[in-house]
Amino acid sequence: MNRLNENFSRLEGDYLFSEIARKVEAYRRAHPRADLIRLGIGDVTLPLAPTVIAALHRAVDEMARPETFRGYGPEQGYAFLREAIQQGEYAPRGVQLEPDEIFVSDGSKCDLGNLQELFSPRCRVAIADPVYPVYRDSNLMAGREVLLLPATRENHFAPELPTTPVDLLYLCSPNNPTGTALTREALQRYLDYAREHGTVILYDSAYSSYLRDPELPRSIYELDGAREVAIEFKSFSKAAGFTGLRCGFAVVPHALKVDGQSLNPRWFRRQCTKFNGVAYPVQRAAEAVYSETGRIEIAAQIAYYQENARLLREGLQAAGYEVYGGEQAPYLWWKLPTADSLAFFDRLLDKCGVIGTPGVGFGPHGEGYFRLTAFGDRERTREAVSRIAALG
Amino acid sequence: MNRLNENFSRLEGDYLFSEIARKVEAYRRAHPRADLIRLGIGDVTLPLAPTVIAALHRAVDEMARPETFRGYGPEQGYAFLREAIQQGEYAPRGVQLEPDEIFVSDGSKCDLGNLQELFSPRCRVAIADPVYPVYRDSNLMAGREVLLLPATRENHFAPELPTTPVDLLYLCSPNNPTGTALTREALQRYLDYAREHGTVILYDSAYSSYLRDPELPRSIYELDGAREVAIEFKSFSKAAGFTGLRCGFAVVPHALKVDGQSLNPRWFRRQCTKFNGVAYPVQRAAEAVYSETGRIEIAAQIAYYQENARLLREGLQAAGYEVYGGEQAPYLWWKLPTADSLAFFDRLLDKCGVIGTPGVGFGPHGEGYFRLTAFGDRERTREAVSRIAALG
Repeated sequence: MNRLNENFSRLEGDYLFSEIARKVEAYRRAHPRADLIRLGIGDVTLPLAPTVIAALHRAVDEMARPETFRGYGPEQGYAFLREAIQQGEYAPRGVQLEPDEIFVSDGSKCDLGNLQELFSPRCRVAIADPVYPVYRDSNLMAGREVLLLPATRENHFAPELPTTPVDLLYLCSPNNPTGTALTREALQRYLDYAREHGTVILYDSAYSSYLRDPELPRSIYELDGAREVAIEFKSFSKAAGFTGLRCGFAVVPHALKVDGQSLNPRWFRRQCTKFNGVAYPVQRAAEAVYSETGRIEIAAQIAYYQENARLLREGLQAAGYEVYGGEQAPYLWWKLPTADSLAFFDRLLDKCGVIGTPGVGFGPHGEGYFRLTAFGDRERTREAVSRIAALG
Repeated sequence: MNRLNENFSRLEGDYLFSEIARKVEAYRRAHPRADLIRLGIGDVTLPLAPTVIAALHRAVDEMARPETFRGYGPEQGYAFLREAIQQGEYAPRGVQLEPDEIFVSDGSKCDLGNLQELFSPRCRVAIADPVYPVYRDSNLMAGREVLLLPATRENHFAPELPTTPVDLLYLCSPNNPTGTALTREALQRYLDYAREHGTVILYDSAYSSYLRDPELPRSIYELDGAREVAIEFKSFSKAAGFTGLRCGFAVVPHALKVDGQSLNPRWFRRQCTKFNGVAYPVQRAAEAVYSETGRIEIAAQIAYYQENARLLREGLQAAGYEVYGGEQAPYLWWKLPTADSLAFFDRLLDKCGVIGTPGVGFGPHGEGYFRLTAFGDRERTREAVSRIAALG
């Protein structure tokens, strides 16, 4: 008998971003004086907002005094944060959630990786191609077959509907890596499909704070019938620069049932058994994101990155390249003049000192594309544009 | 086809500690003026040590400046913390680990719950009975059969060796809930067993900071041959009051192989795919635990809880009760005069206003016992002892 989980052998050798980090490290060692610009991994660069910093300091001080110290919190997150999320994130869009439909976590990567545990290993799973690799890898590790739904320039990067019924459907909008957002009409088509086939939609809205177009939905629950079929994931990482603090949340509505059973108490049970909540100061920091000053400061951060995205988009276009995304998202999806995005990664690193992410890492239909992120420093982003323009 | 993970139905209705929290909440609502003493869930009550608080504030300030801000860290934890763990935790016991054998996490509950993912659902698992429910529940959720190894006063709470070969063996020493520690000789027996049968030992040493007897091993790697068969888990929760900060680590030695394959890169792959590291300020806080002033302050905290344990132990003994644990651990394991520990929970709550944990919640061989924790306030602990003594 094999004692190991043999599904691990279905994964490619390394998690994409770890592999790229090693490539860059090797290059850096070989060229210690190279002036590298990192527009690869989608990590923020602006410091935390002053209101967030103040909330962290206050919470740390509370942890220093016996009368205000907090030990274990609720696995699902403190009520103050779940209330702030409802009021700050959902109420403005006319969405009313119950407090116990919101589950605070240490980030959407964990939630997206773990939530599939609620389902049978024999479930049929569909994910967009290209997309964030965690959806695929976590399902492969659990032994599931994964159906890829091509998202190409021909279909405006709205993944095709599955041609055979599926049980789970992962969507990400605005999408990582294509930087494009689903319209209300496109999203409604997936919802209609899900309601017809009893499919559960896992909706990753990590980048919804970057939407500019007021017509585009910020939450899937703005659409009719979503509560019966969709789980929504949202992270503070890109919305408020929390990549180094670790906080996000998942919404599992009571109305969502599979085989007649509600998923909400199952996720609660899973989290109570294998998770112990998020650091108290971090939850206070997340709460501060929705405060009056927090909102203003965070809006300025988002605007900063949006302007970087504009510079990248217009710079690449001016240099004659075909480029997508960057208007409703912090990602640029660059159609390469070559079919080999890994070779292009090496070339861009070597010729321009610019680090991006080869599209093939996000799925077979990402081949021939390249992802750049808008999370860099303004001047470095400008410098990257001018180096790329000179690449010829 | 069932689309849900049907193994969830093998779990009891609720995670033990959540269920007890609800019982207490219901009692509190019905008796709003009751003066309750909480010695149930093993949560610390002393505030964080000053050196830890200072490290948190410094790290938060770093997050406020562009030149020192940190976004995503390594999934495995920052090198500074892994180095501090090696120097502070292992070097003093003559154990030399490679930096990449240590994996920082947001707590041992997560690690212990997640690590079983590396193994086949058909693996045979043995766990002590009674023990921390996470070992059992996480394996039931994955569809494995779990063999219980009775740990009773007759065998000095050292779980019996499995009578049929097992692939995974969970041990916890000092044990939660019995408060007893495995001797070097007992631990060596498990190691010999594991080496003979190719068993992997999952060794939870969450409470090793509470050991007083210098002869008892603090780490399983102090024993010969452990690296080839054992994974060790350690948490800052009880060692340094981090229950509200969330930090721990797992050690997966390179020498540990299953079916000829090293587990270390598999755990790295799992963590890279489904986890995104621990908040930077929390990692700095954990590092500070091993600083010169940190050690002194933490030692004083441990001594405070150890003294509570002594008061509980001697107080219960003086009241004529049979009690175990409390000398090498922050838990007291009270042999009840009744076989029904759930009924005793209600009685103790109602008559004394003291909240403990019914032994049956930790496994069938926990029935007839009751767990009290030493993590309370000194005066409240004294008060609990005198109320229990008056119970008669």
